[in-house]
Amino acid sequence: MKKEAKKINNSEEKLGITSRADNFSQWYLDIIKSADLAEYGPSKGSMVIKPHGYAIWELIKNELDKRIKKTGVSNAYFPLLIPEKLLRKEQEHIEGFSPEIVAATYAGGKRLKEALIVRPTSETIIYKIISGWIRSYKDLPILINQWANVVRWEMRPRLFLRTTEFLWQEGHTAHATDLEAKNRALKMLKVYRDFAKEILAIPTIAGVKTASERFAGAKETYTLEAMMQDGKALQLATSHDLGQNFSKPFGIKFIDEEGKLNYCYQTSWGMSTRVIGALIMVHSDDVGLILPPQIAPVQVVVVPIWPKEKDRKIVVKKAVNVYKRVRRIFRVELDASEQHAGQKFYEWERKGVPIRIEIGPKEVEQNKALIVRRDTRTKRLVEIEILEEEIKRELIRMQNDLYEKALQFRNKRTVEVNNWVQFKKEIKKNNFVIAYFKEDKEIEQKIKIETGATARCIILEQKGRIGKCMYSGKPTKTRVLFARAY
Amino acid sequence: MKKEAKKINNSEEKLGITSRADNFSQWYLDIIKSADLAEYGPSKGSMVIKPHGYAIWELIKNELDKRIKKTGVSNAYFPLLIPEKLLRKEQEHIEGFSPEIVAATYAGGKRLKEALIVRPTSETIIYKIISGWIRSYKDLPILINQWANVVRWEMRPRLFLRTTEFLWQEGHTAHATDLEAKNRALKMLKVYRDFAKEILAIPTIAGVKTASERFAGAKETYTLEAMMQDGKALQLATSHDLGQNFSKPFGIKFIDEEGKLNYCYQTSWGMSTRVIGALIMVHSDDVGLILPPQIAPVQVVVVPIWPKEKDRKIVVKKAVNVYKRVRRIFRVELDASEQHAGQKFYEWERKGVPIRIEIGPKEVEQNKALIVRRDTRTKRLVEIEILEEEIKRELIRMQNDLYEKALQFRNKRTVEVNNWVQFKKEIKKNNFVIAYFKEDKEIEQKIKIETGATARCIILEQKGRIGKCMYSGKPTKTRVLFARAY
Repeated sequence: MKKEAKKINNSEEKLGITSRADNFSQWYLDIIKSADLAEYGPSKGSMVIKPHGYAIWELIKNELDKRIKKTGVSNAYFPLLIPEKLLRKEQEHIEGFSPEIVAATYAGGKRLKEALIVRPTSETIIYKIISGWIRSYKDLPILINQWANVVRWEMRPRLFLRTTEFLWQEGHTAHATDLEAKNRALKMLKVYRDFAKEILAIPTIAGVKTASERFAGAKETYTLEAMMQDGKALQLATSHDLGQNFSKPFGIKFIDEEGKLNYCYQTSWGMSTRVIGALIMVHSDDVGLILPPQIAPVQVVVVPIWPKEKDRKIVVKKAVNVYKRVRRIFRVELDASEQHAGQKFYEWERKGVPIRIEIGPKEVEQNKALIVRRDTRTKRLVEIEILEEEIKRELIRMQNDLYEKALQFRNKRTVEVNNWVQFKKEIKKNNFVIAYFKEDKEIEQKIKIETGATARCIILEQKGRIGKCMYSGKPTKTRVLFARAY
Repeated sequence: MKKEAKKINNSEEKLGITSRADNFSQWYLDIIKSADLAEYGPSKGSMVIKPHGYAIWELIKNELDKRIKKTGVSNAYFPLLIPEKLLRKEQEHIEGFSPEIVAATYAGGKRLKEALIVRPTSETIIYKIISGWIRSYKDLPILINQWANVVRWEMRPRLFLRTTEFLWQEGHTAHATDLEAKNRALKMLKVYRDFAKEILAIPTIAGVKTASERFAGAKETYTLEAMMQDGKALQLATSHDLGQNFSKPFGIKFIDEEGKLNYCYQTSWGMSTRVIGALIMVHSDDVGLILPPQIAPVQVVVVPIWPKEKDRKIVVKKAVNVYKRVRRIFRVELDASEQHAGQKFYEWERKGVPIRIEIGPKEVEQNKALIVRRDTRTKRLVEIEILEEEIKRELIRMQNDLYEKALQFRNKRTVEVNNWVQFKKEIKKNNFVIAYFKEDKEIEQKIKIETGATARCIILEQKGRIGKCMYSGKPTKTRVLFARAY
């Protein structure tokens, strides 16, 4: 923490951004700082999400919320403070979370008889509450989602990736059958996967966690894993099939169609502000932030340029005109400030604005505008009459290109291996390594200690063939993705 | 708390709703329960906002957020946990809030060296952080808003009105001049006032708090006061002119245009889930919830009616048809369930759906639909061709009528008095009482003890004349609104 804080102070003085090749971690922090997305708060590991960072989160939230609601889920809100005994009801769950727990012990000037836990996740409190909502199968399924802040004490904080508090959505459902719950968990995994692809422009690998990496209390944890530009993996979202692991301790019972009492089958699933960290590490370059147009708070910036003072009036007038037209359709800023054109370009580039429209004396004369793309920096002179269509086309193209680029990058650095020697060699290069692997907690632990890699997931799209475990040589059907991870 | 919890359990058994005349408090809880808006959570005074209640909050939030952003404010997010020493920096502030504070003392398995306070409001932490954002007048104004949960320990909890945790937005600004800050505080008061009128259909009286009722740490607190159907006042929103009261202890300095170092002038302002309580108590009746169309999660319900089974198919088909047309424009539900028509009507009425469309065999034959308004229960048969226009007109009319009705109700129960005998008589009737009053903390305290009324605000729209204080007889220009309050 101290070391990182010092680094931040240093970067305050310099204008440049560390290159990815030189120091990926420092580059990441420099991008956040230069795009003005976030900073550390006064208490350990806490984060301030600044207006530009929060605007990205709002766009993510609006779009994801729509997609979640489309599957029949309603939003609701449950208490932040969880009585300790509730959290203790599911044994694996509390064991998994206890090192991260923050507990309130004083309230209203008095010591509390029972500590209140600041929610690290809400399974326990939500399940306690919905147990009162369900009597028969007619009350099922329960499909709810909550947008909330959660608190998990962090020893090695890192902006967006690991902070003591973060924002997320957590979905919680209860069903009459095991199969329905499993299908819901998989459906939400698909919602996240499509969202990652179409909105974040991030390709993901879908899989199931091994027992050692599973959510505390889940029967199965489904996950989406994405590759960052340093080759490491980042978990983008998880969806848990909880089976009856929570419904039994919390007494979530229902009378089924045959009149028998049964426990519900449940799921929970979430995506957090962590994805902003992923966005940065997947798309940005050494100049600054690059944002997929879908979640760019500013999609287009209009910059008038007047090398000679005499042209100023006419150029600015045209730019204002263009700005007014274009903002009816896109999220647009006009930068008619006094700064040098180069300085302006640089500032908007660092903030990740997808398209810059330059208007100078030549453009005014020809009734054209110069469109410059942030990612490729390609320039195109277009007729002002068709400017809106051209911007639209370019934004769609950029959104697709960012996805394709990330996909190609990942594919190039994903290798299949069939023995332990190859495995170690490829992990050392920070590649994604896919191998036949027979699940075994102890071996996973050994691999982690020796290579720093973890089993990210058992890949969902299996080939159906039997192979030999790359470590033990035993026959197995499961292919596992290994990688070093955030 | 215990008593209230018992009452809730009782109402679980009965189907009816207590009348306002019989027991206003119980009526309020019955409305919440029968409209399925919220319930108490497992820890003292905590609240669960159920899907129907949360959908109202989402509509409030979306609309208010738009209006706040229109004034140039950006959203951001600041940490939940505030180091205790930060909260202690402004003396009046901590004194005002200390009885309500919830403190975290354990984290990550260890006792914390310094307690972390779960935010009761965010002035202290936000001002600590933004002090690092400001160097010169060029960085001003800072205009930010945060949508968040806050925690204040409550001894007498009441759903929506007083709960240990609630949701709100809190705006925070910093300016170069005293006047600019004052104008911002007043501008936000106007935003809230227009919002209350146009969206919540609640008329308000705008004023300034007396010193005894002022926000802890503010120079001036502007407020909006609304009358509930029992004649009591509820504070709908507040906007604080903080002057330099926080900028000095938090060192929020800037270099002004003349190169001199000065402290910023600040404001903060907020509206919370409390307004849902106000919505209920202003508009609802003995049948159930009444919602202004603007914030009704379901604006229209389409109900097919088939007294004879032979008509069922044709009636349901028409209803589905109408539903599909209407939902393109409005928030609509179709209720083609097996229940008795009367039962359906009652359920949707309790939930406060503004318009019910009935379609029976006669309506099918005539190609018409029956529009029934929730508030007046007036019925109108309209041609299906012009259904959308008619619904639109009716919703606008209902929105206006609800406001007018509330305004007339309030005006009827607002009296001007000029002496202490009259004052007591009118307060006893739970009226709003307006009187010339020379501000005096001790006298306010006496009035409160003797009558239960508090000075809600010094009315902003003064007459400019001088009158005699209704209590002391001293000459004064200020006219004050007194009432018993929530």
